Amino acid sequence: MSEKLEQLKERLGEVADIGRAASVLGWDQQVNMPPGGNEARGQQLATLSKIAQEKFITDEVGRLIDDLKQELNGADPASDEAALVRVAARNYDKARRVPPEFIAEQAIVSSRAFEAWVEARGKSDFSIFRPHLEKVVELVHKYISFFPPADHPYDTLLDDYEPGMKTADVTEIFDGLRPKQVELIKAITSRKQVKDAFLYRKYKQRKLMDFGVDVITKFGYDWSRGRQDKAPHPFETTFSVDDVRITTRYEEDNPIATLFSTMHESGHALYEQGIDPDYERTPLSGGTSLAVHESQSRMWENLVGRSLPFWEHFYPAFKKTFPKHLEGVSVKSFYKAINKVEPSLIRVNADEATYNLHIMLRLELEIAMVEGRIAIKDLPEIWNTKMQDYLGVTPPDDAKGVLQDIHWSGGSIGYFSTYALGNLISAQLWEKIRVDISDLDDQIRKGDFSQLLGWLRKNIHQYGQKYEPQTLVEKVTGSRITYEPYIRYLTKKYGEIYGL
Amino acid sequence: MSEKLEQLKERLGEVADIGRAASVLGWDQQVNMPPGGNEARGQQLATLSKIAQEKFITDEVGRLIDDLKQELNGADPASDEAALVRVAARNYDKARRVPPEFIAEQAIVSSRAFEAWVEARGKSDFSIFRPHLEKVVELVHKYISFFPPADHPYDTLLDDYEPGMKTADVTEIFDGLRPKQVELIKAITSRKQVKDAFLYRKYKQRKLMDFGVDVITKFGYDWSRGRQDKAPHPFETTFSVDDVRITTRYEEDNPIATLFSTMHESGHALYEQGIDPDYERTPLSGGTSLAVHESQSRMWENLVGRSLPFWEHFYPAFKKTFPKHLEGVSVKSFYKAINKVEPSLIRVNADEATYNLHIMLRLELEIAMVEGRIAIKDLPEIWNTKMQDYLGVTPPDDAKGVLQDIHWSGGSIGYFSTYALGNLISAQLWEKIRVDISDLDDQIRKGDFSQLLGWLRKNIHQYGQKYEPQTLVEKVTGSRITYEPYIRYLTKKYGEIYGL
Repeated sequence: MSEKLEQLKERLGEVADIGRAASVLGWDQQVNMPPGGNEARGQQLATLSKIAQEKFITDEVGRLIDDLKQELNGADPASDEAALVRVAARNYDKARRVPPEFIAEQAIVSSRAFEAWVEARGKSDFSIFRPHLEKVVELVHKYISFFPPADHPYDTLLDDYEPGMKTADVTEIFDGLRPKQVELIKAITSRKQVKDAFLYRKYKQRKLMDFGVDVITKFGYDWSRGRQDKAPHPFETTFSVDDVRITTRYEEDNPIATLFSTMHESGHALYEQGIDPDYERTPLSGGTSLAVHESQSRMWENLVGRSLPFWEHFYPAFKKTFPKHLEGVSVKSFYKAINKVEPSLIRVNADEATYNLHIMLRLELEIAMVEGRIAIKDLPEIWNTKMQDYLGVTPPDDAKGVLQDIHWSGGSIGYFSTYALGNLISAQLWEKIRVDISDLDDQIRKGDFSQLLGWLRKNIHQYGQKYEPQTLVEKVTGSRITYEPYIRYLTKKYGEIYGL
Repeated sequence: MSEKLEQLKERLGEVADIGRAASVLGWDQQVNMPPGGNEARGQQLATLSKIAQEKFITDEVGRLIDDLKQELNGADPASDEAALVRVAARNYDKARRVPPEFIAEQAIVSSRAFEAWVEARGKSDFSIFRPHLEKVVELVHKYISFFPPADHPYDTLLDDYEPGMKTADVTEIFDGLRPKQVELIKAITSRKQVKDAFLYRKYKQRKLMDFGVDVITKFGYDWSRGRQDKAPHPFETTFSVDDVRITTRYEEDNPIATLFSTMHESGHALYEQGIDPDYERTPLSGGTSLAVHESQSRMWENLVGRSLPFWEHFYPAFKKTFPKHLEGVSVKSFYKAINKVEPSLIRVNADEATYNLHIMLRLELEIAMVEGRIAIKDLPEIWNTKMQDYLGVTPPDDAKGVLQDIHWSGGSIGYFSTYALGNLISAQLWEKIRVDISDLDDQIRKGDFSQLLGWLRKNIHQYGQKYEPQTLVEKVTGSRITYEPYIRYLTKKYGEIYGL
């Protein structure tokens, strides 16, 4: 390895260490911290983030990257060295464009917007949040102005979550997907609804958590390199490839969600535990994009965890754990219940068939906000109209409508579409996996996930951030991100469940 | 506040934030971290410590300190501003003297020495540890060489733990203490031994932990600004004045120790929770020295927690919690049992009467090592001889002798005496407290610790690092650190228990 590469890796290694330290502080904040700790913790995180930025955007790092680009000119672009310099250069260029004062301003605006959002949602009063969201969108425009003009201003935002992805790509995909998905939901809602009352009894938290632990242990989650805790919001966080943690939560009114939340987060964690350890402390560590990350969490939660073969394996044990709750409930009835489709108001509770429509609605609003085509004050009304158009439901108030998500309050505009893209990618990968592992259902039916995990390790996980999301998906499946496999998957699954 | 002071505080605030972040990582390492996380965590901590050092010893910080010294010339030395600049200057001078390469070398040597010590203790074979300890002592000499010559080379080491304290002060105190303490133990061991078999039954962990929580809640430990977890070694750690955490452990063969460990660590935590919040993110935050810190933990553990009034309050509840274990055991018998004096081999298990002798032995060996008067290879023999002289026991092997403590493997030479000094200070403060709160015993007997805590807050806690330990002790008690109150305390207590 060249001396300059060594030097660059040392500098970037320190930056990575600070980032990971901040993740530990963030995890602790959500999992353990006593209420008193909040103010100092915010200060500590601000300091770490400031120092990481300072250490990254030095002229020296810039020179090393430039020299290495020259040095590696003509090298195999798929080599780890070339990839490392490429990703470092991309991140460096972005980081240099955004002035520290802007970051500081954005932190203050977001923090106030977050507080206003909490209050607004509590009172279901959009007018409290409105001036803050206006300020957030103003800063988003300012942020975009730091970058060279793109095909579409929204491209700049999207690129932070999905490197290389264009707004036009996403809208094309969604334009194809939308009518098919609306049609499917219409067909489903015209059929007889499945029964699921038995899912909403009092399932004991401890037993559900233990069951979740058993499930993800079989998935291959490595407990010597991770742990699970409880937190108000489930998440996965990475302190190193050998310390990848997840959290879950328990909701009184939807106890079974604990189980799916654990499976979902374990999908993120399996990804992170499977990345090439040589990428540690470099910009190649971590998953390549939010959408690819979400493809992994959704795959384990939905394509595996809500499948019939999965429950054919686990249901006897589950029924033994909750004999009274599930008395007289067959595995088929249980399977149908956990896959019930019902157009609803809240994104995070949406089923697989309706989920993407929640996302498309948000993406359309975000693009319109960025283009300046709509006034923030009109958001609630537009939201409600679209909900009626796409899902046939109308929010009774803003708390259950435009105010339900945290993302905009934190300035995260450009994020939502990654959830839907993740669904699509998961189905694309799944079709390929079914070709490569022809008896996959039988394996799952036996509780054996080793070949599946091995496939994901080999084809997705190990690469970390080496490839951009579209490149990776194309490399593995032969085509770029597309909606057809997901529609095929939904149609088959719900066709069987609802007898379409 | 002057602009320069503002600037200095900003720089030092960042350094403090990094230090506190490192504490969070250290806490997590001991409380939560899965085994896989170890290597990356070591790297993350090394990076944080390097950056904190870099950010602290800049020329700019040096100039600010020099300018502020001038600016504050003639200001009240007891003002917060003068104290802040004084302590910052002291720390800065020390930090500038030690080259970064030395710190890196020391980290590597300690890490190897620690591994060798673990192995050596496991096999009870000093020869495995010996070459590493030789290297550690070599580095200690090198460290001393960075500083101006002191009255005694050991002064330089001691000053890192007890600012302003001299080796001569400590040896003078210990020379006075040693014969009195040896005499007392001889008198005790000639009397009939107390019964304590009932302490070694199977006390349930959960119940003991809950009881400990009740006790320190009454002490005044603020749970909205802290929490308790389990860890292999009990400790207290501070992330801010509003997030001060403790850990405890449970040992099968000495269950009751859980309770005293909780009280001990809560003493450290009460100190940290009581420091002036204005000192946050400055060098005045945190306790003033290890000895003063230990005076607080020992006070709550021993002077409070092993006193008869304490158990007159808590014993009924404790007996109700463990009715079978304590059947027929009166509060007096219980009190005697938890205060049993028995010369023993292991420092951490030693009672109040013998503990200091373990320390004196170590201090003598450390001073002799620093002076080069003894060869490392002779340590085990000298250790065993001194154990026989002071305590009348001889270790059967090195694991129970010279290899029992972790400190030397980490390069912490100069640390041990702070434990004994803490005992002495606790008794000095206690005599003063008894004068100021004449009905202290009655208050404790009622489970009311509010006046005691209030006194400590007012006279000790709030000051943080504003005063050096000797100055603080003199300010509060009218005399510098001395052994007489401690001997008076032991003589009275054990006189009653053993009928001397």
